[in-house]
Amino acid sequence: MLALAGIPLGLSFRFLDPSPDAPAGEVGELLVGAYDDPDLLDRLADGAAAVTYEFENVPVDAARRVGAVPDAAALEAAQDRLAEKQFFRRLGIPTARIDGEVETFPALLKTRRLGYDGKGQRLVEKRSGSDPGHVLEERVDFDRELSLLAVRGRDGDTRFWPLVENVHEAGILRSSRAPAAGAPQAEAEEYGTRILDALGYAGVLGLELFDLGGRLLANELAPRVHNTGHWTIEGAQTSQFENHLRAILGLPLGSTESRPSLLVNLIGSVPRAGDVLAIPGAHLHVYGKEPRPGRKLGHVTLVEPTQSSEDELRALV
Amino acid sequence: MLALAGIPLGLSFRFLDPSPDAPAGEVGELLVGAYDDPDLLDRLADGAAAVTYEFENVPVDAARRVGAVPDAAALEAAQDRLAEKQFFRRLGIPTARIDGEVETFPALLKTRRLGYDGKGQRLVEKRSGSDPGHVLEERVDFDRELSLLAVRGRDGDTRFWPLVENVHEAGILRSSRAPAAGAPQAEAEEYGTRILDALGYAGVLGLELFDLGGRLLANELAPRVHNTGHWTIEGAQTSQFENHLRAILGLPLGSTESRPSLLVNLIGSVPRAGDVLAIPGAHLHVYGKEPRPGRKLGHVTLVEPTQSSEDELRALV
Repeated sequence: MLALAGIPLGLSFRFLDPSPDAPAGEVGELLVGAYDDPDLLDRLADGAAAVTYEFENVPVDAARRVGAVPDAAALEAAQDRLAEKQFFRRLGIPTARIDGEVETFPALLKTRRLGYDGKGQRLVEKRSGSDPGHVLEERVDFDRELSLLAVRGRDGDTRFWPLVENVHEAGILRSSRAPAAGAPQAEAEEYGTRILDALGYAGVLGLELFDLGGRLLANELAPRVHNTGHWTIEGAQTSQFENHLRAILGLPLGSTESRPSLLVNLIGSVPRAGDVLAIPGAHLHVYGKEPRPGRKLGHVTLVEPTQSSEDELRALV
Repeated sequence: MLALAGIPLGLSFRFLDPSPDAPAGEVGELLVGAYDDPDLLDRLADGAAAVTYEFENVPVDAARRVGAVPDAAALEAAQDRLAEKQFFRRLGIPTARIDGEVETFPALLKTRRLGYDGKGQRLVEKRSGSDPGHVLEERVDFDRELSLLAVRGRDGDTRFWPLVENVHEAGILRSSRAPAAGAPQAEAEEYGTRILDALGYAGVLGLELFDLGGRLLANELAPRVHNTGHWTIEGAQTSQFENHLRAILGLPLGSTESRPSLLVNLIGSVPRAGDVLAIPGAHLHVYGKEPRPGRKLGHVTLVEPTQSSEDELRALV
């Protein structure tokens, strides 16, 4: 989706992916190999105006080697759930209680590294001994999960898309609605600004938040384009993909002005294109990935959704 | 632009182009050779769900060989300026006076075939002898040139984008504004419907019209996605490119609901990306073609243009 947004800007793309079937190969040169292969990393960066990533578990050293934007500091903050929470707190951004602060059980024991889509976490009934590979986190009785999508240019210009409300199923994002009704946009933007400025960030950043009756707790940051922002392709004046490219290349940012939109992920299977496209306002995005249970294979965005278009879409997915 | 619209729908693309540098090679498999090379045509069509063209001077026999959509009848009507005018008239659609009907001179002597961007026509002071390769056309003192962009599905479902007003410079389209203020949309759609139905058409069609104080004369038809419709990528709910693909594949058509937009072609040279992207509401499209005087190298679309954004853009191009 980055390449589809960048080709019209006159950009060409080269990708590094462990899979020879990576869909990116259709829209650029594909280097197949490990994220930490030094030769491939050098070939990836050779002659590039910028190098970026859209997966936050790429090794920090690899990001350093290619001079990636956003830089390795952002990646480092995002890869360790304990460091991430501590980072939020240093900036005065509230989070759930962790480790020694946890008062109520069952609580969540999360691996500090390499967790996504609800993986790498489980409920525990009591505090165990010291465990440097995990972080214990009190469960938050939140009303809803929100996410804030932000972009900051190399010159510090910062813009936000409206907060979206996310719904997960079995730990996997199923849908995001923009804008989240009655959401504390100003508070979220204040937190977002602190994070972006502290990191001297360039690019798009996603910030996952819990909403407790209007009070926000920061949960996770994603230093990359974010699934909860895929609706911006049609729903916003400038998509997260285009603004990410503009930001990392030092180009002026585009407007984040948006229309009400609903993003629904296609998980494990893809409905017939004709059925999706028959829904008023539906935009289909198929990623060209091999189907697998629980795998995100595409998404549908409804711009200016109505009850009936939503119902039609829900009946398909 | 067809591929950029189709990849999200899960489509893959193969192209035939005489140039090894054709920009399409970046987003699909590129076969390089003549449009009438039978082996290449067979390879082009091999396994394809549909074959189409985005240049109306491809040979009719080539279109037939690959079973192109829109079909060869549409191409045939568009390739001969005399047949085209006669076709309009058979459908009761007014055109300029031609050949024996011409009353005022100087008049335009146009080649019947292979003209575009104002090429293949010149002013003459008097009628010459019979000339089967040319058509004589009375100059129309029109107020403005409009174009109608239409799409018809395989099932006959027909939709129109709003009429746009076009401005040419040195015979080359410079800009298109959508919607054209106070334009006779209903009359244009009536003519469009007659043409699409007569041809049993599937796909996007562009119809160039002269507006004489609200009365329309048909000038040319283009059986393909059309330069005056490039603004639909951002300015319409569904772009001409996506709707063309939907139409030729027998998928449901998308809404043509639109926002006011201004398309400006980049001719001969491309301004710095940063200068274009600094303009509010500007969307840049660079085609990746070698610069050449008079060549269309890209376009910029302003969605919901303002006087100041228009002025900024005009200062760059």
